[in-house]
Amino acid sequence: MTIITLTSDFGLSDPYVGIMKGVILGIAPGARLVDLTHNIPPQDIAAAAYTLQTAAPHFPAGTVHLAVVDPGVGGTRRPLLATTELAAFVGPDNGLFSFALEEAGARAWVIDRPEYWLPKPSRTFHGRDIFAPVAARLAAGMAPDALGTPIADPVLLLPARAPERRGNGDIAGCVLHVDRFGNLITNVPGEWLAEGRWTCEVAGARISGPSETYAAAERGDLILLISSGGMAEVAVREGSAADRLGVGRGAPVMFRAQ
Amino acid sequence: MTIITLTSDFGLSDPYVGIMKGVILGIAPGARLVDLTHNIPPQDIAAAAYTLQTAAPHFPAGTVHLAVVDPGVGGTRRPLLATTELAAFVGPDNGLFSFALEEAGARAWVIDRPEYWLPKPSRTFHGRDIFAPVAARLAAGMAPDALGTPIADPVLLLPARAPERRGNGDIAGCVLHVDRFGNLITNVPGEWLAEGRWTCEVAGARISGPSETYAAAERGDLILLISSGGMAEVAVREGSAADRLGVGRGAPVMFRAQ
Amino acid sequence: MTIITLTSDFGLSDPYVGIMKGVILGIAPGARLVDLTHNIPPQDIAAAAYTLQTAAPHFPAGTVHLAVVDPGVGGTRRPLLATTELAAFVGPDNGLFSFALEEAGARAWVIDRPEYWLPKPSRTFHGRDIFAPVAARLAAGMAPDALGTPIADPVLLLPARAPERRGNGDIAGCVLHVDRFGNLITNVPGEWLAEGRWTCEVAGARISGPSETYAAAERGDLILLISSGGMAEVAVREGSAADRLGVGRGAPVMFRAQ
Repeated sequence: MTIITLTSDFGLSDPYVGIMKGVILGIAPGARLVDLTHNIPPQDIAAAAYTLQTAAPHFPAGTVHLAVVDPGVGGTRRPLLATTELAAFVGPDNGLFSFALEEAGARAWVIDRPEYWLPKPSRTFHGRDIFAPVAARLAAGMAPDALGTPIADPVLLLPARAPERRGNGDIAGCVLHVDRFGNLITNVPGEWLAEGRWTCEVAGARISGPSETYAAAERGDLILLISSGGMAEVAVREGSAADRLGVGRGAPVMFRAQ
Repeated sequence: MTIITLTSDFGLSDPYVGIMKGVILGIAPGARLVDLTHNIPPQDIAAAAYTLQTAAPHFPAGTVHLAVVDPGVGGTRRPLLATTELAAFVGPDNGLFSFALEEAGARAWVIDRPEYWLPKPSRTFHGRDIFAPVAARLAAGMAPDALGTPIADPVLLLPARAPERRGNGDIAGCVLHVDRFGNLITNVPGEWLAEGRWTCEVAGARISGPSETYAAAERGDLILLISSGGMAEVAVREGSAADRLGVGRGAPVMFRAQ
Repeated sequence: MTIITLTSDFGLSDPYVGIMKGVILGIAPGARLVDLTHNIPPQDIAAAAYTLQTAAPHFPAGTVHLAVVDPGVGGTRRPLLATTELAAFVGPDNGLFSFALEEAGARAWVIDRPEYWLPKPSRTFHGRDIFAPVAARLAAGMAPDALGTPIADPVLLLPARAPERRGNGDIAGCVLHVDRFGNLITNVPGEWLAEGRWTCEVAGARISGPSETYAAAERGDLILLISSGGMAEVAVREGSAADRLGVGRGAPVMFRAQ
């Protein structure tokens, strides 16, 4: 009953996701399949990494996370298997799993045993031909060492957008994710704002906080709070902060102590 | 093997739905998870109530319906658990489950035993921290009385849009839901039109019926029939009545006996 | 633990898909449910047939494929059950399963035993009332002969868009499907291009190939390759060929030997 989560940029209109599930269930009939999302913007590795980083901690120990956002498919990028104390990760070696690889005790393997893939793998759909079979074999109990060779140099995303504490105490960050409600989730950890009151500057607006809950604002008002994932977040109660402020992912955000 | 259905306004692009599923499977590993929809318009309690009311009767006895459309999260609205003869319901006490609470034998509890939630619940994501764990514990066999305290005053949606029989025999109603095909599903029960022929007036058009099937109309013609959920419905065969008539949810509809 | 896949044009915002799943799980509690897609364009039988044909071969033997794209519901079209060596198919007799019916050993039945449907089937939602119960009974082990009567004349889609070899060696085809990435998947089998080099003409562009992988092109360049499903495909590396060329499904494509 091992859980396999699936994350991709395949969307829900093409048969690609269903095909991967068919391959998995042919190898691991008892696997539990859970979609994280298949609406990652095409080829957006950073967005997929955000999804995985946010969701993975909430799954039971032993879960296998299969993720396919793979602009380099068929080229020289390696197929990757990684493990942490809690979970396993299968997908292209392009930075998708950086957050996991940075954990203490994380290990990585290049997937290089074609006898455990589909026969005659294509060069355009490794999700079906390599990653789904390997995730299924992990779920069925096979050891990582049987599926690949240990490596010490998996690709890590550059922390280009890490938040920064300035000398004057200000914190410079950016919008990491805009969710369906138009909430702006920043890359600034909530604990950085734990003491005192702060003013958040974004797109010309100034918002004082953090508040404890959406309900602390009037309908339609901007509010600064800590997201459910633990990051500083700018929201509009029963509205969209992204629409109100006209900003999206990557927009700069500045926090100043009051 | 208890079934848990999930309904929300979280959409399918953010990790929120996957996170709730991870929490559930950590508590109730054998639960069967079925999505009703996560595309409820943000904060649209009435739309979610329509979905639940339409879908719930088709699930086996013992199903747990988890629904999170929760504009009041973190404020004073209570977390609710409700049961009927057939099913259990878990979510915010904001009217989502009115149709179930009005059934004979329905019972309600305020969810107030934090020892069965995730530790340190946030004030912005009760779906993850309170409702998913409680739904999972119900699915795992825990009794409602262990999870909450009975209440007699759960929130009910006002029946503001109930259909109305006029003195002259006319029936005044409105469009309750527009589905993907552009079918206009009204709030008028099909049995109200069981006898005789009727003319439906909507957006200046007059449609005679009810007909028995879409195939009774020519392609592109407006047709009045009884929806699969038992309500009077205006449709266009192989087309969209919503587009043709330029109307949406809430539009007034009048039925006159012929 | 039989798998039932689901394909429809119901979308993911209405409760229709969830309702079919509730009906299935009431009859076959152990069935594994896998969505192929519910985003088939409304009433687009050819698009659903493409999805099924592409995905079905990747599922384990014994899988039941339930598909509901059903513009003729309630009219004279028959409900169909079909089997091949590998799988069973349940849905309207309107050509959805042509590819399977053309396989050696395929068999077909008209579904005509109402005692195995929901009571009082509607004339507008056979997915719920007829097809879901029949798919569930198949998954639960019932034989096709108990559910219907053999027929020899199931509806087949006209092969109007079959690729054509011209006398001069050219191959005339068309775009069969545009996927989420904007890749143009044609109806020309990859093996037709196995020998030599070809020039593909589409929307005024000429592309030489086939190449072996997306990575063989520069970012933004047009490329001709063989799709993961084995068909000739025109793509743009990390871009959309559909947007670049301004073409969609049905667009003519010509291949000329170099």
